[in-house]
Amino acid sequence: MSTEQFHAIGIESYENWQEPKAFTYTPQPQRPQDVDIEIEACGICGSDLHAIKGDWGTPYLPLAVGHEIIGKVVKVGSEVTKFKPGDRVGIGGLCDSCGECRRCTHGNSNNCRKCVPTYHGTYPETGLHTQGGYADYIRVSEKFTFKIPDNLSSEIAAPLMCGGMTGFRPLLTAGVKKGTRVGVVGIGGIGHMTILFAKAMGAEVTAISRSDSKKEIALKLGVDHYISTSEEGFAEKYADSLDVIVNTGSSFSENSIMSVSSLLDAFGQFIFITAPPMNENIELAPFFLLANNYSVAGSALGSPADTEYMLQFAADHQIKPWVETIDINEESVKTAWNRLDKGDVKFRFVLTGYDKYFKKN
Amino acid sequence: MSTEQFHAIGIESYENWQEPKAFTYTPQPQRPQDVDIEIEACGICGSDLHAIKGDWGTPYLPLAVGHEIIGKVVKVGSEVTKFKPGDRVGIGGLCDSCGECRRCTHGNSNNCRKCVPTYHGTYPETGLHTQGGYADYIRVSEKFTFKIPDNLSSEIAAPLMCGGMTGFRPLLTAGVKKGTRVGVVGIGGIGHMTILFAKAMGAEVTAISRSDSKKEIALKLGVDHYISTSEEGFAEKYADSLDVIVNTGSSFSENSIMSVSSLLDAFGQFIFITAPPMNENIELAPFFLLANNYSVAGSALGSPADTEYMLQFAADHQIKPWVETIDINEESVKTAWNRLDKGDVKFRFVLTGYDKYFKKN
Repeated sequence: MSTEQFHAIGIESYENWQEPKAFTYTPQPQRPQDVDIEIEACGICGSDLHAIKGDWGTPYLPLAVGHEIIGKVVKVGSEVTKFKPGDRVGIGGLCDSCGECRRCTHGNSNNCRKCVPTYHGTYPETGLHTQGGYADYIRVSEKFTFKIPDNLSSEIAAPLMCGGMTGFRPLLTAGVKKGTRVGVVGIGGIGHMTILFAKAMGAEVTAISRSDSKKEIALKLGVDHYISTSEEGFAEKYADSLDVIVNTGSSFSENSIMSVSSLLDAFGQFIFITAPPMNENIELAPFFLLANNYSVAGSALGSPADTEYMLQFAADHQIKPWVETIDINEESVKTAWNRLDKGDVKFRFVLTGYDKYFKKN
Repeated sequence: MSTEQFHAIGIESYENWQEPKAFTYTPQPQRPQDVDIEIEACGICGSDLHAIKGDWGTPYLPLAVGHEIIGKVVKVGSEVTKFKPGDRVGIGGLCDSCGECRRCTHGNSNNCRKCVPTYHGTYPETGLHTQGGYADYIRVSEKFTFKIPDNLSSEIAAPLMCGGMTGFRPLLTAGVKKGTRVGVVGIGGIGHMTILFAKAMGAEVTAISRSDSKKEIALKLGVDHYISTSEEGFAEKYADSLDVIVNTGSSFSENSIMSVSSLLDAFGQFIFITAPPMNENIELAPFFLLANNYSVAGSALGSPADTEYMLQFAADHQIKPWVETIDINEESVKTAWNRLDKGDVKFRFVLTGYDKYFKKN
């Protein structure tokens, strides 16, 4: 094994995102706080599609995406204290932060203005780019690396690292507890995990979608109620029926925030967790927020402490994201991206079979 | 005294709002829950100007504004239990709500979808219009009428009823306590009361304004810090310095929400409390809220329980809004409106001398 040349699958051009190719890259030199991880599973997140399509900019090429990474520690830097070789660990959407700003020193390092995304990111001190988990290895700081509880399988744990954390955090922010009336917009990758977490917290959960087509599957996930926004007069019929809405849809134009938010009771919170294309803004009528004491908030990932709590919560409550595993190779990645792009997955692809592919290539 | 014909000063046309005129009106028939109040003081709120200019619609004429009302109970309906004649009471921005919806029955009657504003409102059951506190009497439900603590003078208590409550509520919503870093945008009628309340709660308070012109007066109000948004690079210089911002400005275009909000630490809350003209929307970049875990919320008035708490808090902490009293008559109302329109008051006009004017007319 060479840890100085990593093998990955990614895009060679943003226009040609549908043609993933194998490539090799030189990781950043190992720092004292870094761990090298041999990857064994990686979820395919909606962010992966946004990134390879250039929705969030076109910073460098080639680009390997993937930030729902599970693997085994194979090497640790001299200052690593949390891990030893052999530990099974996970990495989510971020791999580093400055460590010095107020946010970093007050428990919000995921909001650090200099935080480094696991892919699509650049280390400020070296200018080196980050590459994600569609690869044999990854080298990252122990700070954003987390021990995986033994009773969570790698395929189950993978999607928790980004999607699960992203859906869990707004439930913490909103103080969800037994009886809280939680609405989840969008029954997809993150949405279905949000439903599972909210139910495990004892919330009364309502799935909100554009039609009745997802009703059956939402009920299988355990929701208490289902609202189709195509039902005429839904806003009046279900007014005041929710305390918090977690919007997991990736576009804001499809379901207007205001029509869905009108389901909220006074002091209701609308929290969105996914990023639409960068040119899409939110437009709100001030009177609407005023008259109802509503708030609209964004929520990005979670802090390291949040991530540890989320993983333990998932282990304790046996949270089981619905995953479809797929062995990694150029062709299967292409297929998975195309199916995800059409919404044809229930609900998360997880790349596996790393040994098979990378050992022979 | 006739309680069936009330005398008021108001506008006869929205175009001619600068020419207030005396008029008489027939109040709604007294209901069992109503109290008749002989008015002795009324604050002039920024809402009064928005209403008479037609910013919020042009529902009926003549219109007497004024919803920071202090007076003495002179008559009570058969089901009134909170008050007896002679009690000194206050009325704020709302005078009724349906009493039956979830919001009314769960402590949020100020967010009732059928709530009735003290002026510029219409009782749904009768279609009768409300008239405000630029008048000798007002007849309202005891539900939105509040006992004034003895150690608050009527001139001091008046502006608390709308402006004070409006500035106090977001501090409760944000959980402000000793050490919370509170920014207040706009050093005017509501803004200066927000500063006084936040200081009394033990917050570290920063006044935020467009220039240095209000620095001296803000320091007199007791703020700990002052930020001028015309200072180059202010957003970077004071980044992460606030936990919550209460925006008391009445327009959103003057100080872009996003540039001011960037002063907030992670999970910071931007709460606005005044209503701009109805066609002015808020536009926000989703990534900005996401990356910082920011929330943007509206806050309208307060519930009856909030109002009782606010009044007692003001009495206990001797909160003293800065008021300029002015004896009520057509000419003085005109002068006050014109001066308020130019921002020429520090910080609240309170109409007094009701006896003198209404007893002789």
